[in-house]
Parts: sequence; C-alpha cells; structure tokens
Amino acid sequence: MQIKPFLDDNFLLENTTAEQLYHEFAKELPILDYHCHLPPDEIASDHNFENLTKIWLDGDHYKWRAMRTFGIPEAYITGEKDDLEKFRQWAKTVPFTIRNPLYHWTHLELKNYFGVTDLLNESSADAIYNRCTELLNTPEYSTQNIIKKMNVEVVCTTDDPVDDLRWHKKLGDQARGFKVLPAFRPDKAIFIDSQNWNDYIDQLASVSSISIDSFDNLLEALQSRIDYFHDNNCRLSDHGLEQVYAVPFTNAGVNKTLQKRRAKQAITAAEIEEFQSAVLHHLGIMYADKGWVMQLHLGALRNNSSRMMRTLGPDTGFDSIGDFSQARALSTFLNRLDEENKLPKTILYNLNPRDNEVMATMIGNFNDGSVKGKMQFGSSWWFLDQKDGMTKQMNALSNMGLLSCFIGMLTDSRSFLSYPRHEYFRRLLCNMIGKDVHNGELPNDISLLGGIVQDICYNNAKSYFEF
Amino acid sequence: MQIKPFLDDNFLLENTTAEQLYHEFAKELPILDYHCHLPPDEIASDHNFENLTKIWLDGDHYKWRAMRTFGIPEAYITGEKDDLEKFRQWAKTVPFTIRNPLYHWTHLELKNYFGVTDLLNESSADAIYNRCTELLNTPEYSTQNIIKKMNVEVVCTTDDPVDDLRWHKKLGDQARGFKVLPAFRPDKAIFIDSQNWNDYIDQLASVSSISIDSFDNLLEALQSRIDYFHDNNCRLSDHGLEQVYAVPFTNAGVNKTLQKRRAKQAITAAEIEEFQSAVLHHLGIMYADKGWVMQLHLGALRNNSSRMMRTLGPDTGFDSIGDFSQARALSTFLNRLDEENKLPKTILYNLNPRDNEVMATMIGNFNDGSVKGKMQFGSSWWFLDQKDGMTKQMNALSNMGLLSCFIGMLTDSRSFLSYPRHEYFRRLLCNMIGKDVHNGELPNDISLLGGIVQDICYNNAKSYFEF
Amino acid sequence: MQIKPFLDDNFLLENTTAEQLYHEFAKELPILDYHCHLPPDEIASDHNFENLTKIWLDGDHYKWRAMRTFGIPEAYITGEKDDLEKFRQWAKTVPFTIRNPLYHWTHLELKNYFGVTDLLNESSADAIYNRCTELLNTPEYSTQNIIKKMNVEVVCTTDDPVDDLRWHKKLGDQARGFKVLPAFRPDKAIFIDSQNWNDYIDQLASVSSISIDSFDNLLEALQSRIDYFHDNNCRLSDHGLEQVYAVPFTNAGVNKTLQKRRAKQAITAAEIEEFQSAVLHHLGIMYADKGWVMQLHLGALRNNSSRMMRTLGPDTGFDSIGDFSQARALSTFLNRLDEENKLPKTILYNLNPRDNEVMATMIGNFNDGSVKGKMQFGSSWWFLDQKDGMTKQMNALSNMGLLSCFIGMLTDSRSFLSYPRHEYFRRLLCNMIGKDVHNGELPNDISLLGGIVQDICYNNAKSYFEF
Repeated sequence: MQIKPFLDDNFLLENTTAEQLYHEFAKELPILDYHCHLPPDEIASDHNFENLTKIWLDGDHYKWRAMRTFGIPEAYITGEKDDLEKFRQWAKTVPFTIRNPLYHWTHLELKNYFGVTDLLNESSADAIYNRCTELLNTPEYSTQNIIKKMNVEVVCTTDDPVDDLRWHKKLGDQARGFKVLPAFRPDKAIFIDSQNWNDYIDQLASVSSISIDSFDNLLEALQSRIDYFHDNNCRLSDHGLEQVYAVPFTNAGVNKTLQKRRAKQAITAAEIEEFQSAVLHHLGIMYADKGWVMQLHLGALRNNSSRMMRTLGPDTGFDSIGDFSQARALSTFLNRLDEENKLPKTILYNLNPRDNEVMATMIGNFNDGSVKGKMQFGSSWWFLDQKDGMTKQMNALSNMGLLSCFIGMLTDSRSFLSYPRHEYFRRLLCNMIGKDVHNGELPNDISLLGGIVQDICYNNAKSYFEF
Repeated sequence: MQIKPFLDDNFLLENTTAEQLYHEFAKELPILDYHCHLPPDEIASDHNFENLTKIWLDGDHYKWRAMRTFGIPEAYITGEKDDLEKFRQWAKTVPFTIRNPLYHWTHLELKNYFGVTDLLNESSADAIYNRCTELLNTPEYSTQNIIKKMNVEVVCTTDDPVDDLRWHKKLGDQARGFKVLPAFRPDKAIFIDSQNWNDYIDQLASVSSISIDSFDNLLEALQSRIDYFHDNNCRLSDHGLEQVYAVPFTNAGVNKTLQKRRAKQAITAAEIEEFQSAVLHHLGIMYADKGWVMQLHLGALRNNSSRMMRTLGPDTGFDSIGDFSQARALSTFLNRLDEENKLPKTILYNLNPRDNEVMATMIGNFNDGSVKGKMQFGSSWWFLDQKDGMTKQMNALSNMGLLSCFIGMLTDSRSFLSYPRHEYFRRLLCNMIGKDVHNGELPNDISLLGGIVQDICYNNAKSYFEF
Repeated sequence: MQIKPFLDDNFLLENTTAEQLYHEFAKELPILDYHCHLPPDEIASDHNFENLTKIWLDGDHYKWRAMRTFGIPEAYITGEKDDLEKFRQWAKTVPFTIRNPLYHWTHLELKNYFGVTDLLNESSADAIYNRCTELLNTPEYSTQNIIKKMNVEVVCTTDDPVDDLRWHKKLGDQARGFKVLPAFRPDKAIFIDSQNWNDYIDQLASVSSISIDSFDNLLEALQSRIDYFHDNNCRLSDHGLEQVYAVPFTNAGVNKTLQKRRAKQAITAAEIEEFQSAVLHHLGIMYADKGWVMQLHLGALRNNSSRMMRTLGPDTGFDSIGDFSQARALSTFLNRLDEENKLPKTILYNLNPRDNEVMATMIGNFNDGSVKGKMQFGSSWWFLDQKDGMTKQMNALSNMGLLSCFIGMLTDSRSFLSYPRHEYFRRLLCNMIGKDVHNGELPNDISLLGGIVQDICYNNAKSYFEF
C-alpha cells in the first residue's frame, strides 16, 4: 500500500468519487460563515496584523490549552514574553499535537493563507514566523482582503443586544464583495443569577431608552433591540446555555422575580429557572415574528478553573464538555413555541457528542413540512470541530434525518485564519459520500450527489437564512 | 479502486468471507420475526392492498418524517391528496434520503418484493407505482402470501391485554406455513397517570370478569389475561417505557393509590412511581411463572408535538430519543425479581445508543448459567435500525458479552414490506465477521463462524423462545 | 484480498508503517504496570501455580461472566468441580467468545507465556491443559520469573491503608530486576454508609495508633498511613467511586456526622455526601503534599446481583457500567484543590464510554503548564479494555487533548497472565498512527512518530510517576 503525501490536493479524499465531488462541486463555492466570533471592528478597520503571533496565537484558546498540556509556562502563552518567543514555544508544541485538529488546522492555514508547506516545528519556527509576518504586512493581508481571498460571501458576527452595531453600519455603507451581518446573543439578559445582571439590565435600559422595572419592560427593551438589529440586517439569534430552560412559569411570577432581583433581594433557584424559561420563550416568539433563525448552543461547562478565571477571564481555555440532560426540556421548549405557532427556524448544537442522537431526532419532531429543513441539527462545534466529531454528527444526521437538507459548516471562530475549516468540512462530506458510492451503498450518480454536496456547502444555507 | 454496483448480490459484503458467510449460511434461513406491530386482522383477512401507497406509505411514520423534513406539505403525507399524488411526493423525496436507512430499505423492498431495480425518483414514480400496484392486486401478493414469500416462520404481533385475540385464534385454526403468535403489552395498565387509565381499567375488568377496586384485583385481572394469552400461544411480553420503575413500594400503599385513582382523586408523582414499580414487578413474576420472555423497550420520548398529537394521534412521526438514566433502576428491578427467583428471560432494548454499554453489561449481571443467553441485549431498534446503529449494538455486545448467544433481528414494523430488514441485518453480521477474518482478528474457520452466524440468525431465537 | 493469518507477528498492524512503529519502537520497551491488582504476597512467595486453571481461571471474573452467559452451570465456574473439568468447560466456551477481548487475550496469553499456538476449544483442551500445567511447574514459571519474562520493570499493586505492606518490604529487600510498589486505596474509609465502616475505622485506628473519634483524628490517621505508604515507596493513590463527591461541607459538620456514625446513630444522605466530599478533598491535599498521583476510577455500578453477592462476594462478575453524571462534581472537586494550590497530578478513568469526551476535556481545564500532561485521561478500563474501547479513548484524547502526553497502558488485572494487554495496546497505538500516515493525515516522519510511540508506551509514565 502506497503512502499518501501529507496534506496534498486530495487530503481526506479516499477515492476518485470523493475527489470528483470535492474538486468539481464543492471546492469553488463561496463561504457563508453564518456563525462566528470575528470582532466587527477589526473587519471594519481593515487593518493589518503586526505579526504571526498577533493574528494566530493571541486569543486562540485551542492553542493555549495544547501548550499548557505540553508543559509550556503561562508566560509564553498569555504572559509577558515577546511575540517571537511565544511563537517559538507554539512551534515546539506543534509536532506533539499530532491527531489533534490543531495539527491539520495549523498546516492548512499556513498553506492556504501563506503558501507555506513546510511543517511547523522548533527548527522551522523562525523562518515561518518571518515569512508570514512579512506577508501580513502587505496590503493583500488586511483583514478584509483576507476575507475576500478566502471567497467568503457572508460573515455573521455575534453581538450583544446592547451593541450599537456601529461597525456593521460602517461596513454596510461600503461595497466590499462580502456582507457582514450581526447576530443577536442575549445571554446576559437571561442569566439573572449573574453578579452583573443588574448592571447589564441598566445598560439595556439605557440603549433602548426603556426603564426596566417589570418583566413587560424587559420584553419591550429586548423587542426594541431586536427591531434595531433587524433594521441592521440581523437575521439570526444565538444562545449559549448549559441546558434549555423550560419549566412552567407565569408572567406575574416572573415579574415578581425580576423586581426582587432589581431590588437586589435574594431569589431562589426555582425563581431563576422560571425567569430564564420565560425570557427564552418570549425571545423565541420575537424571533419567529421577525422570521429569524434561532441558534441554541447547548452543553458547555464553562470557567472551570476559578484561579485562571480571575487571572485571564472567560474564553481563555478553561471550558469543557458538560453532561447535562437535554431531551425533555428541549422538547417542552420547542413544543410550547410550536403550540403558539411561533416556533422559529431553529438550529440545535450540542457540545457533548453523546447527545448527537437526541438532537438528530429532536429536530424531526418539529419539522412540519412548512420549510425544507426548518429544524436543523447544527454542525459539530468547538471540541467536536474535527474529523471524528463532524463524521459522527453527519452520520447521526444522515441516519436519523436528512443529510441533504443540512445547512452545513460555520467557523464559530475568533480568528481570521479559520476559514479552512470550511474546506476541511467539505472534504469530509465528499469523502463520506464517495466512500458510500465505492462501497455500493449509494448509486454512482454524480449529478445527484454533487448537487446534494453543493446544497449542503452553500445552497441550503443561502435559502435557509435568505442571504 | 473499482466502484461496486449499488445494491448488488453482495450488498454490504466487503470481502469473500463475508460473501460466503451470507450466501452459504445466512441467506436461506427462515425468519423468526419475534417482535413486530403487524395488525393480526390484516394477516387473517389475507387481503390484497389496493395500491403501493396503501401498503407502503400509509402508517409509515419513517417516510412521513422524511417528507416533512424535505418540506412536503402534510396534505401529501397524511392529508386529503390522492394515493398517486402522495406517492409522487414520496418518490421526489427518495433521492434526498441518501445515507438514511429509508434509501436502502426503499430499494431493497422494491427489489425483493416486486423485482423492481430502477431507482425511485420523480421520473420513475409513475411507472413503479403502476407496476407494483398491478402486482399487489394478484393473488401472490395477499398478506399471507407476502409473508410466505419472505420465508417467515413465526410472526409475533403486539397486543393489548384486553384483546380477545380472535384473529390469532382464526389464524391458529388454519394451516398456513407460518405461525402468528400474540405478545402481551400491558403499558396501558401501568400508566396510572394517563387520562384514560380508569376507562382502560374498566375494560380490563370487563374482559377478565374481575371487578378492579384493589391492587389484588388488578393483579388477578392481569393474571387472568396472561393465562388467556398463554392459552393462545403467547410466549412474550413487551413494555414500552421511558425508564424502568423500581422504587420501593408496599402492596398496601399501592392499593391505596389505586383506590384513590379509581375514585378520581389526585395522586402524587411518588405514588405514581410506586404503583408503576409494583405492577411491573408483579408482572415480571407472572412472566417468570409462565416461562415467558420479558421485553423492555426503554428510552423513547414520545408525542413531542402537542399540535400533531391532537391532529394525528400517536405513532405518526413525532417521537424522538430521550436521555433518561437507565442503569440503577434497571439493576434494582432485575435484582428484585432475581432475589425471588422469578427473573424471566429478558430482552433489554435501548433507544439511545449512548446506553449501549450499560445494556451490554447489565445483562451480564443476571446471566447465571441457567439458560444460554438468558439475558439479552436486544437488536437495534427504531431510529437505531440502520447500519451504524446495528454495528454499534453488535460491537458493544461482542466486546462486553457474547455475540454468539445473541437472538438477533426482528422487524418491529407495522408494514408487510419490512422483512428485508432481516436480510440487511444478516449481511451486516456476516460482513462484520468476514472483515475480522480478513484482518487476522479471527481465525479463518468458516464452519465455526458460519455456525455462529446461523445461531444468531435463527437457532438461538428458535430455542430461546421455544418456537 | 488476501486473508491475514490469525494472531501473526503483525496482528492488529494494518500497514508497513504500523509494523515499523511497533517492531522498531514499541515492542522491546519494558512494561511499567502502574496500576494492577496482583496480590503482593503471591509475588513475594515466588511460588508456582499448580495448574492452568489455578493461574488462569481462578478469580477471573471476565471468564466467569462469559461462561455463565454461555449457559455453563456455576459448579464448573466457582463451584465444586475439579480443575480439569472447569478448564474443559472454559475451553468449550472459548470459540463462542469470538469478537470479545477474551478471545484475543486467551490466544495471546497461550502464545506469549506458553508458546501454544493451537486454538483453544473442546478438542484441544486436554492437551493444552497438560502442556501448560507442565510448564507452570518448572522454575521459569514462578510468579517472579513470569514477571521478568514479560519484561516488566515496575508493578504497582493496590493496597488498603490498613495494610502493613510486609510483602512489599520483603520484596524491596531483595534485588529482582523489577520493582513492586504499593498504591493507596482508601475507599473503605470514605464509604461511611457501608455496614462495616465502624469496624474498618477501628482497624485504621489500630494500625495508626490514633483513636478516631473526630474528623481531625480520621485525617491524622489517614495522614499517618500515607506517610507510612510513602516511606514504603508508594507514589500513587487510587479511588473507585460511582461519582466524585464535591458538595459543600464544613469540617464541623463533617465532624458531627462522623461522631454520630461512630455512635451508631443514623445519618442522612446529605450528611453522607458531605462527609465523603470532605474526606476526598483532604486526601487530595495530602496526595499533593507528597507529590503523589491521584487516580479516580469512576462510574462502575457494582454488586448488582444480591444473590450472587451473598454467595460469592464482590468482584466475582456481577458488576456493570453505570450512567452517573460526572462533569459538574468533577470540575468542582478538582477546582477546589486547584484553588488551594493542592491539585495533585491526577488520572481520570471513566467506565462509561459515553463520558470519554467529558474526561478528555476536563483534564484540559486543569493542565496549567506546570507539568507535561499533569492531568491525564486514563487508559480504557475493565469493560472498555478492548480494541473498540481503547480506540475510542485514544481518539477522544487525540482530538480533545494531546495524545503525545499520554502515560499509556496498565493491566488493572488480578492475573499474572495479563501482561499481553500492554502488547495489545501498543499494537493498536502503532496501527492508529500508521493508518493516519498512509492516509495522508500525518506526515511520514518515522522518527517523530516513533518517538511519540515510545513516550506513550514508556517514557511519559517513567517521568510522570518518577519511577
């Protein structure tokens, strides 16, 4: 058996049908990156990053976790060491990330953005750093040119309801060959037990010019921000929750809870859950009324290290996969909206792969023929954004739903260098189908299968989000 | 690498050993379909279905879910459109079900029952509809002839304790080359919190001629129905539960609960669970006394869409996979029966594949050498009745128990056209073993392995159920 | 396609790179068996086993479960039948264990220890029994010579805090080419709800010469035993728990609970959990202070058959996989220790494979760069100690952590004949990496990859445990 070269043109493609599907149908399609965490100001400013560490290592908690595991001191990760020293430590770690998605991402990103095909390690570190840094300082590597180079058609950022969307407005006023749309993520309004909730509600009151002293006011304020986001081309919401909240509530009860909390009185766990259930339900209705898509990212267990939370804050590499129950509450939540004929198009993302089958079958309960693929089992996310994770998600979806109706991949990334994750996904998808064909499990009908590949990579999302 | 033709004679068989095992050992064995939902009246009437929609689409909630997901309006699914229009919509959906078991089932069923080898899609729809409808109206396609054509030796239906089994009696009085046996499914007697429980208990009282005003009466009535079913050749029971109930109870306490509920007084969640635990325990004893097999289908989350439940009722495609805890209660339940030396032969079926390993090891706790494979980890079921699901179930069973003692496949279907699922299972089983042989993980001893294949496909079930 | 011979030199190795990695890098490395259940007295006595049943079947609950499942009466398993009769029943069962790890273990063990390459079955039983029994009675088959023959460098046993470690001392005084170290397993001190807890605490008081009538005393006694174990070269602890206990507690509250229990008064479930949380937390601190490694074996559901527990006691084949929640409590427990800067090096072992991803990501929360691979996701254990289980564990670890930092395999066995499990693991590891190379998913850099293989098989554990 011949050894296939690492990361060649047919990377991840195991037979000729897979190759044909990828190269002839998938490769050239534009990217609709409908969920990411790119900072809109950095897109709008169209600036250049100073060096490879700044664009690649800063803020990348995936790399940080790997370095910590490998035994690299924090000074070289988030600490005081200079950018080249930090890069060298990362380069030293890279060979020892084999079989982790970081290993593939690293080399795909070096290749696709910078044309670098050398493997990154201690001895190649300085040359690669210098070469990439040099390129990063040329006009073609401004943030907007990077996005264009990657054939991106739409970017949806993730934004707080109190955001004034000034950067989206600025970007909207300019023609640039791609669209940058906001997405509405109101987690802070929901987490009434958070220490900062009252401050946040004050902010929300201020931006919406609605004083919030009742549950009705809160809903009005949220509705006003949704209207504002909608006017600024927002078409998606997003929620990051351990579990969906779906206990019974009354607006009167919830109103009392809100008022107690506004008055800084203690509230009970039951009151918290009722409040959260109520806000989530009412938001769902508002999304449905606007024709938005609702995204639910479920199951992360966050900020596990108090020590590092104090030092570095959230999203710095100290989160993990939870093992919460999901099915019953999700069913109750979705059904309640459906009962009122207010269930928006919805994407369910689970972080624990043991919940794949729950999600893959849950969507079937509320697909009612009204919209193709109305309910979506979202693409593998975060820790699952790798070959095994994506394969399992697509297999569960295939077996228990219709893969052909899937809206496909997104980056969910904070980095301008993450677009090859779409390529990675497309290769896996094509390979999966190509293998079935060669194995006699699918008919050898390239036009049907190529069309389905294109739907999953582009067409389905295009029409689902009405981009 | 050559492309294998879709669905040829060696479908799912990846090497010569797999082929040999299937063609020489498995293929010709009769089918023991020990758990299904075929309506006994439709077998007894030996009628012909009017057209392909009637036999294939009506009542098939698998197909309905797929159509709804694909965006087909309900009128074409369960609604007022005529049979040909419905069929065309299904045909249009089929190509977009690739990688779902429906795609394989569809084409296996067309091939095995009707000799149709064209792929079903919009353009082939009418021709296939007409051809199959024509055949369905010939004598060879009466319900009984279909069963015979498929080489079925035993069919076990699923029946309510209040059923008079008149169709089974009628079928039993005739010689027909296959047996149709009832199975006892007393869910309605257990679900004391159901709205219709009192009505159901009245029915049970009526058919058993035992007025039910105490827990003892209830047990007597159930025992009398078990006796009746036994006299009509029933040898299996079946339960469809989210979780097993196994909290502590006293007969006195349970008696009080029953009397409150009979008097239409409110009962608590704790009382409900005690009652359910008690009935389940006592039924287990009765099954053991009769030498019956007890089946437990665990983990479905049913009727998630209230709107569609009101419109279409249960079993119409709005169920999904739950994420209940299973291990502790199952252990307690089985152990209690074992303690009284009243643990019947038992088959555990889980709907959530994340529970495969719990089930595969749970059976080992109560296999005591008394009967080969006394405790069974049942074949992949419902949403898991597909290549991945079956493969994972058989791998878990192989690794944590003895695959060789497995009683194998069943259809669990409401359709006369589902028997190819046995073929599908047999092919997967043979392929799994054939691959191990070629890979050097099993010795190349065809006579041993072929014998084990035959045990799993036929002999084990034959002796387990004493058919 | 050619059929690979069963169990040849390239068993489990599917391409030339896998073969090269195994034969040139992994095969010859000594074994560091850092967790097992070998009885230290049997090592110290350096005795010979009387026959093959004594060394291979006695105490082996894996084989017992298989025999019970196959329908062998208990008399031939743990009962009164003679050793040859028992062996014959096992031999008869073996061919029907295909696809279970027992089948591979059986033949690897016969081959590696005894040079027997015949397949074990009814007809080969007597010859194999006689041949192996003959060898077992030669000097080369004394317990110590078996360990040496298997190239074992370190054996860590599992010992109760009350153990006087006399056998370890005896072994320590002799030079023998391998080390036998104790490990500290204080489960009995933690399980305050156990019937025998007070008796056990009396024993602990006696060996430590500290009368235990307060929580402080208990901690002193445990500390004194840890000191004693440390002086006898113990460097690891071990806990076997359904779940980690991590509820809030106060030492005063826990002290009251202890005193109630010492006085044989009833204690509540909440008090039990607080006590367990407190002991576990304080033990963690003591381990950190000593520089020990803490092992947590999580998720077994034990002693499910009361009947067999009465007859045969624990660890006789009536345990299974539980489905407990693990993530939140584990996070709380580890974080509390980390907050006090007292988190020891820790290995998390899960018994339910559905928790693989929770474990693989949990370790990342507390890897802080201080020690390479400080937090470990432990190798597949017990029911998961087989090809699928190990593959899934290594894939989860690879995708969500760094495989390169893994400390690798252990036997966890009560048997002197289990060392081929290390070979099995090494072959799987090499094959996994070799396949990635041939598939173009890893660069063909044998020196890098061979080095990582050696790290995982030997070097990482060597430096992690400071052996």
